[in-house]
Amino acid sequence: MRYKAVIEYDGGPYIGFQVQPDGKSIQGTLQKALKTISKGHNIGVHGSGRTDSGVHAKGQVIHFDYPAAISTHGLWRALNSVTPDSIRIKEVEAVEETFHARYHTIGKRYEYHVDLAKYPSPFTAQYMLHHPYSTDVDRMQTALNDLIGTHDFKSFCSTKTDKTDFVRTLTQAQVDYDAENHHLTFTFAGDGFLYNMVRILVGTALQIGDGLRPVDEMQRLLAVKDRNEAGPTAPAHGLYLMAVDYMDRADRDAKVASWEDHRR
Amino acid sequence: MRYKAVIEYDGGPYIGFQVQPDGKSIQGTLQKALKTISKGHNIGVHGSGRTDSGVHAKGQVIHFDYPAAISTHGLWRALNSVTPDSIRIKEVEAVEETFHARYHTIGKRYEYHVDLAKYPSPFTAQYMLHHPYSTDVDRMQTALNDLIGTHDFKSFCSTKTDKTDFVRTLTQAQVDYDAENHHLTFTFAGDGFLYNMVRILVGTALQIGDGLRPVDEMQRLLAVKDRNEAGPTAPAHGLYLMAVDYMDRADRDAKVASWEDHRR
Repeated sequence: MRYKAVIEYDGGPYIGFQVQPDGKSIQGTLQKALKTISKGHNIGVHGSGRTDSGVHAKGQVIHFDYPAAISTHGLWRALNSVTPDSIRIKEVEAVEETFHARYHTIGKRYEYHVDLAKYPSPFTAQYMLHHPYSTDVDRMQTALNDLIGTHDFKSFCSTKTDKTDFVRTLTQAQVDYDAENHHLTFTFAGDGFLYNMVRILVGTALQIGDGLRPVDEMQRLLAVKDRNEAGPTAPAHGLYLMAVDYMDRADRDAKVASWEDHRR
Repeated sequence: MRYKAVIEYDGGPYIGFQVQPDGKSIQGTLQKALKTISKGHNIGVHGSGRTDSGVHAKGQVIHFDYPAAISTHGLWRALNSVTPDSIRIKEVEAVEETFHARYHTIGKRYEYHVDLAKYPSPFTAQYMLHHPYSTDVDRMQTALNDLIGTHDFKSFCSTKTDKTDFVRTLTQAQVDYDAENHHLTFTFAGDGFLYNMVRILVGTALQIGDGLRPVDEMQRLLAVKDRNEAGPTAPAHGLYLMAVDYMDRADRDAKVASWEDHRR
């Protein structure tokens, strides 16, 4: 039986989502938890995508096949009981066997949090980038507006990628400022994100806000298609994967059918 | 020159506000910081009151006498540079020599945060009490309303106190629920608080909300004046000292004058 689960995690103590030869990963921790509750079965966990070391999630989605009959409530409860406090299973849902947490995504939403206070808050230092500069929020929003739509985002993709298609569609690129708490929140939503894309977008937007780059810089970077021209990669600990959207059943079935045609 | 400062701290790594023979305290850490920036002077730090081990603050107030001429901005900056990330100096203000962070308080405000989710959030486990029960918020608010006004709060004071006067005035006793985040916030404001008073009030209110005690229980507890009759002391890590209010200059001077009269 296949299950889909929505999970959140504090990425701080982990080497990232994906299992690696050394270190503790989210995927590995979940697989270990499933092995414990299934009394020894090796159950593979598939995520909607990787998150890097230190990146947090409030709405990561996974799927896995559980070998025994168990209620979604029982599975949710058992998983939460054996995972550490840094990982929480928010929801578990039974899905058809064709559902895939990675292949059937149609969109993702990320947030990036920045503390603009002169000295970082004791309560958020591990959960927000500390950027103690007077940044022009309106200027950043004007620049971010140029990113909306379908573009080649090669300038905003780490060169350590194996992707060759850099065209993505952004539906939201927004910055909000909570003046009372000196708290800046970036929100990016789109059909897919390249490696380090949100962190490079934030690193570049902050330089625009700080006056280090012109306000029409995003247009130039989209045109030039060169990672070296964009700003720095903002640190991992400010980034949160907030939500993953999936195609509906009919579209999934159509995708499976076309894949079957393709293999024939 | 005397300075007043508003500070916030994550109480988790500390044995409490007050210097103790063993362990790291907020007061001791601040005194060490002042010694560093004053190049060796032993400068005493006076708080508005103690906070226990693990209790947090977002608006604790201190005063101290600095032996050299320095701007408030310079002092704020220097202190933040030498204190750990778990302590932040929010504001520094020069005050007259008669100001005292403890003797001139006229009120304090505390918050207590509770996570009602079935499993604790990875992001708040150290900063909120995890209480995974379905609690009746309206029932708690009805009970809390009985606390407003001037009462003998002996039932809500740890027996480890040296106080003999248990009469205090509460001006606010409120509980708010953020259903989306399963987040319960208690707010208590008044002219002064007894040892463990907020934590015992919260421990009792949660038992009322959980249906373990009747809704008019607070009235009975105020009348019975017996710590053993009240609920448990809620854990330290959900409690925050939010603000300290002070009498104005004229009242302070009058208090000094009456004190001088008294000594004569």
